[in-house]
Amino acid sequence: MARAYSEFELIRRYFTRPTPHTDLSAGDDAALLRVSAGMQLAVSTDTLAEGTHFFCDAAPRDLGWKTLAVNLSDLAAMGAVPRWATLALTLPGADAVWVELFAEGFFECAGRYGVDVVGGDTTQGPRSMTVTVFGEVPEGEAITRAGGLPGDDLWISGTPGLAALGLNVLQGNIHLADAGHALAALHRPVPRVELGLALRGQAHAMLDVSDGLAGDLGHLCRSSNVGAVIEVKALPLGSMIDSGADEALARCLLLSGGDDYELLFAASPEVREELAAIGETLRLTLSRIGRLTESVGEILLAEAAGNVLRPLDVRGYEHFTEPASILNE
Amino acid sequence: MARAYSEFELIRRYFTRPTPHTDLSAGDDAALLRVSAGMQLAVSTDTLAEGTHFFCDAAPRDLGWKTLAVNLSDLAAMGAVPRWATLALTLPGADAVWVELFAEGFFECAGRYGVDVVGGDTTQGPRSMTVTVFGEVPEGEAITRAGGLPGDDLWISGTPGLAALGLNVLQGNIHLADAGHALAALHRPVPRVELGLALRGQAHAMLDVSDGLAGDLGHLCRSSNVGAVIEVKALPLGSMIDSGADEALARCLLLSGGDDYELLFAASPEVREELAAIGETLRLTLSRIGRLTESVGEILLAEAAGNVLRPLDVRGYEHFTEPASILNE
Repeated sequence: MARAYSEFELIRRYFTRPTPHTDLSAGDDAALLRVSAGMQLAVSTDTLAEGTHFFCDAAPRDLGWKTLAVNLSDLAAMGAVPRWATLALTLPGADAVWVELFAEGFFECAGRYGVDVVGGDTTQGPRSMTVTVFGEVPEGEAITRAGGLPGDDLWISGTPGLAALGLNVLQGNIHLADAGHALAALHRPVPRVELGLALRGQAHAMLDVSDGLAGDLGHLCRSSNVGAVIEVKALPLGSMIDSGADEALARCLLLSGGDDYELLFAASPEVREELAAIGETLRLTLSRIGRLTESVGEILLAEAAGNVLRPLDVRGYEHFTEPASILNE
Repeated sequence: MARAYSEFELIRRYFTRPTPHTDLSAGDDAALLRVSAGMQLAVSTDTLAEGTHFFCDAAPRDLGWKTLAVNLSDLAAMGAVPRWATLALTLPGADAVWVELFAEGFFECAGRYGVDVVGGDTTQGPRSMTVTVFGEVPEGEAITRAGGLPGDDLWISGTPGLAALGLNVLQGNIHLADAGHALAALHRPVPRVELGLALRGQAHAMLDVSDGLAGDLGHLCRSSNVGAVIEVKALPLGSMIDSGADEALARCLLLSGGDDYELLFAASPEVREELAAIGETLRLTLSRIGRLTESVGEILLAEAAGNVLRPLDVRGYEHFTEPASILNE
């Protein structure tokens, strides 16, 4: 009992904070929590690994934020309210400065979205973190990928592609006069939690775009058993072009680049006004970029010139294949 | 939509099985599940990393079993019924044979304990797996580490130390005539789920012994604000001695060795008969190894000879320190 606390235990303490919405939190064999009556629990888990999802010199505070944010994005995409999270952290050693900054970013995100961090594990090994998040959604109101209907409008939030632009700057593939927005999109993604909640009862189908619009739209179409047409001229390329990307690059990044965590959703044309109002309230750009069709399994790109239709290359980011530079396509 | 499935996607398919107790499972942004009325959700997460928790040549089927089993042990230690799990798997590459065997072991354990595997993530990197498990326990009936009272009996299930004996065999530290039981304890730990459930209403405090009896007893004492006396002659060393370990080694392994996942619990002397009946029903050895005391923070070992009391070395297994060989102590 006179046992001295090791560095390892001190590190654990950085992750022990008040958990006002939890019956019993870290420090026992399991946490105990109570799901509100009439609610389903939405659960998602994601790993970020060094070398695959972030560079070894990534700023720890940003990485802490992003580690939780990308997981909350999955809850947002269901229309769920974030409630709890666990963090399994694997570290090569007990670097207290790194851990303190990482925890700062992680809890900044947790605080912003009202998430109790209810437990975790710390292990020695090559750096990676696995987060499991828990959200609540009223029974039957979750927005899955499967409810899209032919004739639905297709919408995307924000400025997808910007994070991939930032990645290419970091990799030295391109040089931009102003890389600030692109790097911020890459390092500090904003999970669209409020948008996800506002879309309950409005959107028929939804998912978050983590692996590029093209690939993720493919997932939505497969789940909903529909096809889609994307209007090139409606794609929100403005932020990328303002940052100094040319139009061809910007389009490519939006369609194939990952790591943006915007919401892609399908909704009836009858709710366009409601959606415009939601975008205004949240001060978030919502772009109507196309529509769902009855041509099951066919995704077409409507080119601006003469409205020529051509099949879309649906390649997204894939961990077990060496990701080809998106600039070489 | 004509996208060919990659090896990576095929691997994911090994982990997609029926989930009869889940509203919506893998394949969307989040799983949706429903906690039964009147139940608290018990949540725990654990990482197993190659080199720290298992050797690179560990048999994948055993490793799959163990990955889930050690997590279910945490639910058992709360008296919770296992219900759901997520698996985040990090792999150096797409080795289909390894993955198929790993999945076989993992789902063997899931099937044995009625667990729906509701989601996960697959990432490229040095091999590790992080599981999050979810169990249900009636509100207020969970057995935490905090309820132990001075005068309570201390009990341990099974034959802790046997897994550490197996580890020493694997490491070449010792040679045994019959290493079968020791290796089985190491490779195929049995989470004491049924025992945990049977102890609801009987045990005052409980935890699972993953890091050695001494260290874990320290956790229980700290949480319950008590001390403890362990009777050396009551320690269940029989299996280790039958396997060929001498008594001093067996005692050391039981006190300081990890990876056994037996339950350590405190209960009133008034329920000794009930506990004996539970052990008989479950065909599981329950050993009464000591008692809790009012000497907060003091753990003593009562030696067989003359009942001499001496302080217990509470060192347990610690990831961020090079674990000294338990044979050199």
